[in-house]
Amino acid sequence: MSGNSDDSANLNAAEHENGYDHDQDSLTVPLLSIQRSTPNNTSQVAIVGASICPIESLDYEIFENEFFKQDWRSREKIHIFQYIFMKWLLAFLIGLIVSLIGFCNNLAVENLAGVKFVVTSNMMLKGRYGIAFLVFSLSNLVLTLFASMITAFISPEAAGSGIPEVKAYLNGVDAPGIFSLRTLVVKVVGSVTAVSSSLLIGKAGPMVHTGACVASLLGQGGSRRYGLTWRWLRFFKNDRDRRDLVTCGAAAGIAASFRSPVGGVLFALEEMSSWWRSALLWRSFFSTAVVAIVLRALIDVCLSGKCGLFGTGGLIMFDVYSASISYHLVDVPPVLVLGVVGGILGSLYNFLLDKVLRLYNIINEKSAAYRIFLACSISIFTSCLLFGLPWLASCRACPSDASEACPTIGRSGNYKKFQCLPDQYNDLASLIFNTNDDAIRNLFSKNTDDEFHYSSMGVFFVTCFFLSIFSYGIVAPAGLFVPVIVTGASYGRFVGMLIGSHSNLNHGLYAVLGAASFLGGSMRMTVSLCVIILELTNNLLLLPLIMLVLLVSKTVADAFNGNIYDLIMKLKGFPYLETHAEPYMRQLTVGDVVTGPLQLFSGIEKVGNILHVLRNTKHNGFPVIDEPPISETPVLFGIILRAHLITLLKKKAFLSSPVRSNIDAFKQFSSVDFAKRGSGNGDRIEDIELTEEEKEMFIDLHPFTNASPYTVVETMSLAKALILFREVGLRHLLVIPKISGRSPVVGILTRHDFMPEHILSLHPLLEKSKWKRLRIRFPLLRKMF
Amino acid sequence: MSGNSDDSANLNAAEHENGYDHDQDSLTVPLLSIQRSTPNNTSQVAIVGASICPIESLDYEIFENEFFKQDWRSREKIHIFQYIFMKWLLAFLIGLIVSLIGFCNNLAVENLAGVKFVVTSNMMLKGRYGIAFLVFSLSNLVLTLFASMITAFISPEAAGSGIPEVKAYLNGVDAPGIFSLRTLVVKVVGSVTAVSSSLLIGKAGPMVHTGACVASLLGQGGSRRYGLTWRWLRFFKNDRDRRDLVTCGAAAGIAASFRSPVGGVLFALEEMSSWWRSALLWRSFFSTAVVAIVLRALIDVCLSGKCGLFGTGGLIMFDVYSASISYHLVDVPPVLVLGVVGGILGSLYNFLLDKVLRLYNIINEKSAAYRIFLACSISIFTSCLLFGLPWLASCRACPSDASEACPTIGRSGNYKKFQCLPDQYNDLASLIFNTNDDAIRNLFSKNTDDEFHYSSMGVFFVTCFFLSIFSYGIVAPAGLFVPVIVTGASYGRFVGMLIGSHSNLNHGLYAVLGAASFLGGSMRMTVSLCVIILELTNNLLLLPLIMLVLLVSKTVADAFNGNIYDLIMKLKGFPYLETHAEPYMRQLTVGDVVTGPLQLFSGIEKVGNILHVLRNTKHNGFPVIDEPPISETPVLFGIILRAHLITLLKKKAFLSSPVRSNIDAFKQFSSVDFAKRGSGNGDRIEDIELTEEEKEMFIDLHPFTNASPYTVVETMSLAKALILFREVGLRHLLVIPKISGRSPVVGILTRHDFMPEHILSLHPLLEKSKWKRLRIRFPLLRKMF
Repeated sequence: MSGNSDDSANLNAAEHENGYDHDQDSLTVPLLSIQRSTPNNTSQVAIVGASICPIESLDYEIFENEFFKQDWRSREKIHIFQYIFMKWLLAFLIGLIVSLIGFCNNLAVENLAGVKFVVTSNMMLKGRYGIAFLVFSLSNLVLTLFASMITAFISPEAAGSGIPEVKAYLNGVDAPGIFSLRTLVVKVVGSVTAVSSSLLIGKAGPMVHTGACVASLLGQGGSRRYGLTWRWLRFFKNDRDRRDLVTCGAAAGIAASFRSPVGGVLFALEEMSSWWRSALLWRSFFSTAVVAIVLRALIDVCLSGKCGLFGTGGLIMFDVYSASISYHLVDVPPVLVLGVVGGILGSLYNFLLDKVLRLYNIINEKSAAYRIFLACSISIFTSCLLFGLPWLASCRACPSDASEACPTIGRSGNYKKFQCLPDQYNDLASLIFNTNDDAIRNLFSKNTDDEFHYSSMGVFFVTCFFLSIFSYGIVAPAGLFVPVIVTGASYGRFVGMLIGSHSNLNHGLYAVLGAASFLGGSMRMTVSLCVIILELTNNLLLLPLIMLVLLVSKTVADAFNGNIYDLIMKLKGFPYLETHAEPYMRQLTVGDVVTGPLQLFSGIEKVGNILHVLRNTKHNGFPVIDEPPISETPVLFGIILRAHLITLLKKKAFLSSPVRSNIDAFKQFSSVDFAKRGSGNGDRIEDIELTEEEKEMFIDLHPFTNASPYTVVETMSLAKALILFREVGLRHLLVIPKISGRSPVVGILTRHDFMPEHILSLHPLLEKSKWKRLRIRFPLLRKMF
Repeated sequence: MSGNSDDSANLNAAEHENGYDHDQDSLTVPLLSIQRSTPNNTSQVAIVGASICPIESLDYEIFENEFFKQDWRSREKIHIFQYIFMKWLLAFLIGLIVSLIGFCNNLAVENLAGVKFVVTSNMMLKGRYGIAFLVFSLSNLVLTLFASMITAFISPEAAGSGIPEVKAYLNGVDAPGIFSLRTLVVKVVGSVTAVSSSLLIGKAGPMVHTGACVASLLGQGGSRRYGLTWRWLRFFKNDRDRRDLVTCGAAAGIAASFRSPVGGVLFALEEMSSWWRSALLWRSFFSTAVVAIVLRALIDVCLSGKCGLFGTGGLIMFDVYSASISYHLVDVPPVLVLGVVGGILGSLYNFLLDKVLRLYNIINEKSAAYRIFLACSISIFTSCLLFGLPWLASCRACPSDASEACPTIGRSGNYKKFQCLPDQYNDLASLIFNTNDDAIRNLFSKNTDDEFHYSSMGVFFVTCFFLSIFSYGIVAPAGLFVPVIVTGASYGRFVGMLIGSHSNLNHGLYAVLGAASFLGGSMRMTVSLCVIILELTNNLLLLPLIMLVLLVSKTVADAFNGNIYDLIMKLKGFPYLETHAEPYMRQLTVGDVVTGPLQLFSGIEKVGNILHVLRNTKHNGFPVIDEPPISETPVLFGIILRAHLITLLKKKAFLSSPVRSNIDAFKQFSSVDFAKRGSGNGDRIEDIELTEEEKEMFIDLHPFTNASPYTVVETMSLAKALILFREVGLRHLLVIPKISGRSPVVGILTRHDFMPEHILSLHPLLEKSKWKRLRIRFPLLRKMF
């Protein structure tokens, strides 16, 4: 992939690979006979939201230097109490704020879209179809334009669902700006307007990103500018605590979208997080419990009719199955069929979405104007479809025993009048000329087995399937959950209609199972989706059927391709570290992938030297070596971080001669100086100005160097080094030589060195032994695209 | 703790500790100036079930030697397919077998206990109270005697709940015999008889152990004796795959106990497992889904009345809340009170149980006769209480609008007649003279607000609380879930009765919340308990209240002591590795805790030497060093396992001269030779006989040595070494010197070296900086016991 790997290195690797099985002695000769000097530039940038950004790794490792140890020893019990109290307070605040945002979000969408549909319907009642279409499509266009403009110009990071970005963040990839206040505002406002504009996009994904944003901002809380609660938050100025907060935020986001507290926690656990602790389970559960309680209280208020059109919709929770249901073994085969077809459709969906996103990337790369134009085209196209397609459906007579008004006029409901006569309704309009939430509710509704015609359901399914693929990639906050649920539900209901009376299950139940199968086929989660669907439909008796359909659809879909979020992350270029090593990594040693040049510092280093190195490299960690006269032979002392070096330079705690400093150094600094600020707020080396005299002075790096870095011997298998790197959550892994006598450090491994593209570019012959996931491939299909 | 740590080492450590803050230079001088020669003997034995056993660690590390790499490269696609297929087949079989066992278990208990109660009740109807008591207490005694005898004589490992043993196994502690067929049979039969004997013990814990047993036996499946499916199971002959299976088994066990598939998975995740992967989530979910589906089918069969007394009970699932419920903010304060008191009671319960178990251990240590005598005494005491206490309650008139027959005669029901007149019932007997499942169902039942009197409920609560504490430690399979649920439900219902009409919630709901609060206070799980209770009661609308009560009770209880299973594990002496390092570990380096003597092997080692070392030490891993002439200086090549050395000795693949062997060595062995057998089935060094001539020969250890061992430098902080050890799941961690020139290995760290008792015995001065969990202590209470 990277074009600049030198040939000699490859040749060396190839020789090594060929000689691997026969030449046993090769293990005792140093493998790094040719010291590579090419820096590893693969995967240093990625597409964040809609624009290309440089990315950094996060520091999850506990940084044990003398200074921090000293600081830690000086902490009192009150500080531990403060820390624990703040953890819980922040978890509470995350839940509270996310639930309020989620509620306002729904309220705004329901009222914006509601007013739009009421006005349009009223015009159609009067027969003014042309003007109705104009109003409908123009209002959609204006809303989409607004959403895409704020996204493109104010915060491109807010585009898309945000789940891939948050997932990458929780894996240790820091993309600038994804958790800024600007992104939060654009995400919320953009999501409301984009969803209101009748585009087939969801609001769950953006809610996850919103939750993560809220959590991250709370953790940074009251930055310097406002000086709020500074002292109590100081313990959260590191990536470990921030990761925990963001996990809680993501869980709260899903909980607020679906009013599904347990599902939210499980989603964060199963899909989002890369590291998980039992304590975090508890804390994120607390956040989602707060979300559930607050939402329940707010919805109680709304049910009394004080929230405009919201009150009638109920929203968020589609609790349509409070009645008891029964099913028997005869119902299992159709459910299995549903699972298999859902798996195939889901993987096809992923495949097509991937292709469309690649196409859109070419357009989006050009300029903001192109992006906005694309969004507007999709909006106009959608408006035409939504308004045009119902005309294809024939009007149906209202059922005499309908449980609600038929046709429904001026509010959400099952029986849309559209162009029909007073006692008739248009079944396709009930689905398509409606908000997504109402469409889902109609599809899930029971005792409406005769409401829809085959052709309407088929048209709706095809429309949703393709429209959602084309809508996701536009430059606006857009989620995937709701489109996938709508598509899956329509397909499930279609299958239910086909099976008809041969089954005990009603069509609404088939819609639920169809949604589950399509979600399973596309997103490949099991336990969390199962719980989310249970909490959505509020009936535990469905559990075995939903489990079955999810397991089947996931298994079938996994035979074809990967999970949708992983595909998007790969497309965006995030250096996501997988849990498992690929088999070819077992055939390589750590020494085979380490690339240079390596920058070392002495224990007591010249200021000018540090300044020069920091200005001329982008490395984030530097090994510190004790050399004679401090020690007898060169010995690895530890590793020091760029940010800490910058702080040292900024504070100018210099020594005039290269001798070890005394204890005074500790008094010049406080731990706050070394606290990690929010992404993008750190000090930059370019801002530091030193006089020539200062440059000739020295710094004693010992107290600020992490004296316990994780190390691997250069002959360590790459697969096992990856396991260490991933499980412990490292940013830098020092490689030490097997035979002493040379430099005490051979190199540093970072996240990028474990990326398959990098390894395969160094050792192209390994490509053939790449892990085949026993997947079914369609060479013809791949050639076509 | 261990009395044999030598004083010089302690002195050295104390000096080091005192000089830590001031003497910066100490970091550059080797810390291990005095090489310790005391082996670490702490925590090598533990109480497994009811007897003391030696324990071993498990090998979760991927063992990368040339031989395995060769073997792995020779694997074909069909092998990968076999492996994946077998994984799923085993998950399916675990689900199927566990659900069948669970069903039969319930069927047997319900019928055994049912017959007993019917016979006794019939005698009481005829006024023959004396003979009724005799029959009741004698049948209880016989059942208890049987359960305790098979446990004491056939398989002491089957005593208790088994959850601590399984939890320790999943943490990497291998106790012999816990997963043998013998244990499985005793666990199932003993649990059925013990529960039927009206002891206040549960069957959920034993089901978890049963599930784990089934899983482990399936993984070992058809051992050599039967020669079944040998080839397909060969990939499962290692601790990693066995761990996954046992996790699935534990999840299936909980799922079968409570018919709670999602709860089972979460329980395994939150409480049981120490390492968790997303793939495992999915697989264990599959197992529990199978359990749920099979149980549902079996219960459908039973509901048609073909299962004796079982059909009328319904059992397993207490789905008492299918109706919709409503609650408001005014109901929150009583729920909070419930949570607080539940937390206090739960921690008191843990405290008392811990003390009683310590007392019982003294008795149990003496002999099997003492153990059986203890069990029988508890049985007689229980019989007296169950039969005697209802006489204290006054008879109450049957309600005119009772939904079921009153008094209930000859079957389970809410209104037990006991000694009362024909139109009356004894409310205390309805609770206490009943199976535990029926008592829970009565407590959870709604529309029965006037059924119980305050005094009856109070007596029942106190009886349950203390009886369950005294019943758990007997030598029979005994769980804690059901006793805790009964006690909590009685307490909750009591609170509900006190609050009375001031609340919208009915008393049955208070019982559910009380059970939740007591579970939370004692077991300290949150998400899994929440889901289990939801699945038990089948009403999602309870969710916010249950979440709230669980969070409050856990928080309150955590202020006093630890979770019940952790207390029991500590009491039993399992060397359980916590996720987090204790703060004092930050003040130590790895070199401070390494103890000798260290046994090394050369790359090409003399057979007699290996035999001698294996016979005279109990170590499980030996560093392999390449010395001149093989390399220029002594170099660490890797680590070799005892089991692999024994295999090499057994196969007698010896060399006549110390030169590196050629490729032929691979042909003499197959990977099956090196497969890990079930616990206790491995080859023993004592069985190997070699001639004097053979002892003079050599073995080339290189192809069988793990050439990629994880290493840490001796100056590494102990806390960070622990994180590496725990996260990666190691058994041996090699310590290498900071300054070369000495031996290339300083020592080996194992699980036992990270145990707080060991560290604090080496460095007693650290005791004062031990982690204080901000817990409330009662010095007076501690002195009393």
